[in-house]
Amino acid sequence: MPEPADTVRLPFPELVELLQRIFERHGTSAQVAACLAENCASAQRDGADSHGVFRIPGYVASLASGWVDGHADPRVEDAAAAFIRVDAGGGFAQPALAVARPLLAAKARDAGIALLAIRNSHHFGALWPDVEPFANEGLVALTVVNSFACVVPHGGHRPLFGTNPIAFAAPRMQGEPLVFDLATSAIANGDVQIAAREGRRLPLGYGVDREGRDTDDPQAILDGGALRPFGGYKGSALSMMVELLAAALTGGHFSFEFDWSGHPGAQTPWTGQLVIVIDPSKGGGQAFAERAEELVRQLHGAGQTRLPGDRRYHQRAQSRQLGVALPATTLQQLRQLAGH
Amino acid sequence: MPEPADTVRLPFPELVELLQRIFERHGTSAQVAACLAENCASAQRDGADSHGVFRIPGYVASLASGWVDGHADPRVEDAAAAFIRVDAGGGFAQPALAVARPLLAAKARDAGIALLAIRNSHHFGALWPDVEPFANEGLVALTVVNSFACVVPHGGHRPLFGTNPIAFAAPRMQGEPLVFDLATSAIANGDVQIAAREGRRLPLGYGVDREGRDTDDPQAILDGGALRPFGGYKGSALSMMVELLAAALTGGHFSFEFDWSGHPGAQTPWTGQLVIVIDPSKGGGQAFAERAEELVRQLHGAGQTRLPGDRRYHQRAQSRQLGVALPATTLQQLRQLAGH
Repeated sequence: MPEPADTVRLPFPELVELLQRIFERHGTSAQVAACLAENCASAQRDGADSHGVFRIPGYVASLASGWVDGHADPRVEDAAAAFIRVDAGGGFAQPALAVARPLLAAKARDAGIALLAIRNSHHFGALWPDVEPFANEGLVALTVVNSFACVVPHGGHRPLFGTNPIAFAAPRMQGEPLVFDLATSAIANGDVQIAAREGRRLPLGYGVDREGRDTDDPQAILDGGALRPFGGYKGSALSMMVELLAAALTGGHFSFEFDWSGHPGAQTPWTGQLVIVIDPSKGGGQAFAERAEELVRQLHGAGQTRLPGDRRYHQRAQSRQLGVALPATTLQQLRQLAGH
Repeated sequence: MPEPADTVRLPFPELVELLQRIFERHGTSAQVAACLAENCASAQRDGADSHGVFRIPGYVASLASGWVDGHADPRVEDAAAAFIRVDAGGGFAQPALAVARPLLAAKARDAGIALLAIRNSHHFGALWPDVEPFANEGLVALTVVNSFACVVPHGGHRPLFGTNPIAFAAPRMQGEPLVFDLATSAIANGDVQIAAREGRRLPLGYGVDREGRDTDDPQAILDGGALRPFGGYKGSALSMMVELLAAALTGGHFSFEFDWSGHPGAQTPWTGQLVIVIDPSKGGGQAFAERAEELVRQLHGAGQTRLPGDRRYHQRAQSRQLGVALPATTLQQLRQLAGH
């Protein structure tokens, strides 16, 4: 895609620092700010625009509304040899994961697999940054998070599921880890918002209007309409699984259970998140990373030139060289939010 | 669907016994025969025709070809507090799971989550029977198995993935467990074979012919063509995950790695299987089964009248009352195979 004319570029550490100042200035602790800034700047760096700085106004509005606690102290409960619970205390999920992360990795290496159940948490960022670091340590990681009711179950007529993404990361011997992060909705909410802002139409089948009719108008989806799951009844079944794992199992809310109407400006879903980490060195056969490399070779041979994660790695390399791209007007807004 | 005119009905235990005799007569131990007969008869009972008695000739041909060992003795390795490996010894995956099952459930209850990695195994049956029993014990279970190269990765031009199903089961307070079993291909191989046999066309996008062109002809898919993943790049990413978990992690073969050309008649893929079992009582909040029940209530309220698994439970109830339906000619063939 050609770069818009007003694009400016900022070194990644500068963007992280700028976002960190915004978070701290708008009601989070330094630790929470560091987590969220890293997540958001990484998405921007990797070209995942719908989860990059585009999300900052939503974070700020949610914090201002009193809906999410930017100073919450996650409480880690060591429930069993391979099971950790975290009560995020009504704060964000990423700092809860950060606090539990060393214990989760240690349990996975010790027991072969370990589970982290985060509840009472808000997740408003990209999901792949939660799993990619495990793969960089040679571990395999899978995570699911539910969000807010905006997806109509297959065969149903009103929204119940969130966009309920599934993210997975696995190490490779030579290249960057194999990582995917996919919404179980036909399209991510952030991408609907971007399409609406840019006046673009969507393919039919992605969403319905407020009367439940198929529509290609992103604004109609946003104005009381809803999304559809990807892949028909299969995506719908996977979305149901995400609700069961991220909410029923963790003790968090289902996507349809919380009421943020008393907090105008609230945008961060108050749900739960489940993370599973596996130590593949406990498995049979050759080293996992070598086997993953063989799969990649074969995928290339079969003509799949772009593997899951490749677009992000490409953008990341470019951002490392040239700086992270963002519109000049956006940078100005961010600096204002940071109090510059 | 109306029942074909030549349908006969057989009590479930009689069908199991008949299939068991067939397996034993064609080269399996009594224990292996019991596992496979239960799996196959359950699929027939529940209306999952593509994995029911339709598969028996494939089993028999594979056993006759010497490709799969019907007498293999699965070797269980207790690798860590939450990690079990099984070398199925070139035999079937279901008896390997059956042998490791008590240890797997015990580890899940003890550690909160546990993983079973089966390698050197053949899986030719429906996948949901592998997870549903865990949900009946109050556990949550997820399993993946790869198969044989018949699915073109997204953006690629030749088959590499198997149909690579994902099956999931979770307990409910009142109703039967929530269970799904979905191929990550746009359609299951068995359903393509059935469509070909019945002379039906398939929707475009499900498969390609031997030149890689989209086709609606099931026979063209079977004659050197291939399937596509469901849901575009998302289903393709999930299928890749299944290869990594079921093969790279277990030490089994990828779907494209084994060569059965020296065994004419071989139909059972020689790969691996991964099973993850979670004890939801270790989670936060209310009892999991109550929360799952609440989700079901809401799904019904949102208009999803048919939940994952419902069609099977409906057929199962009918089969319990009337007997398991199968064509009279098929029953005759089965009896011949059993040596009657």
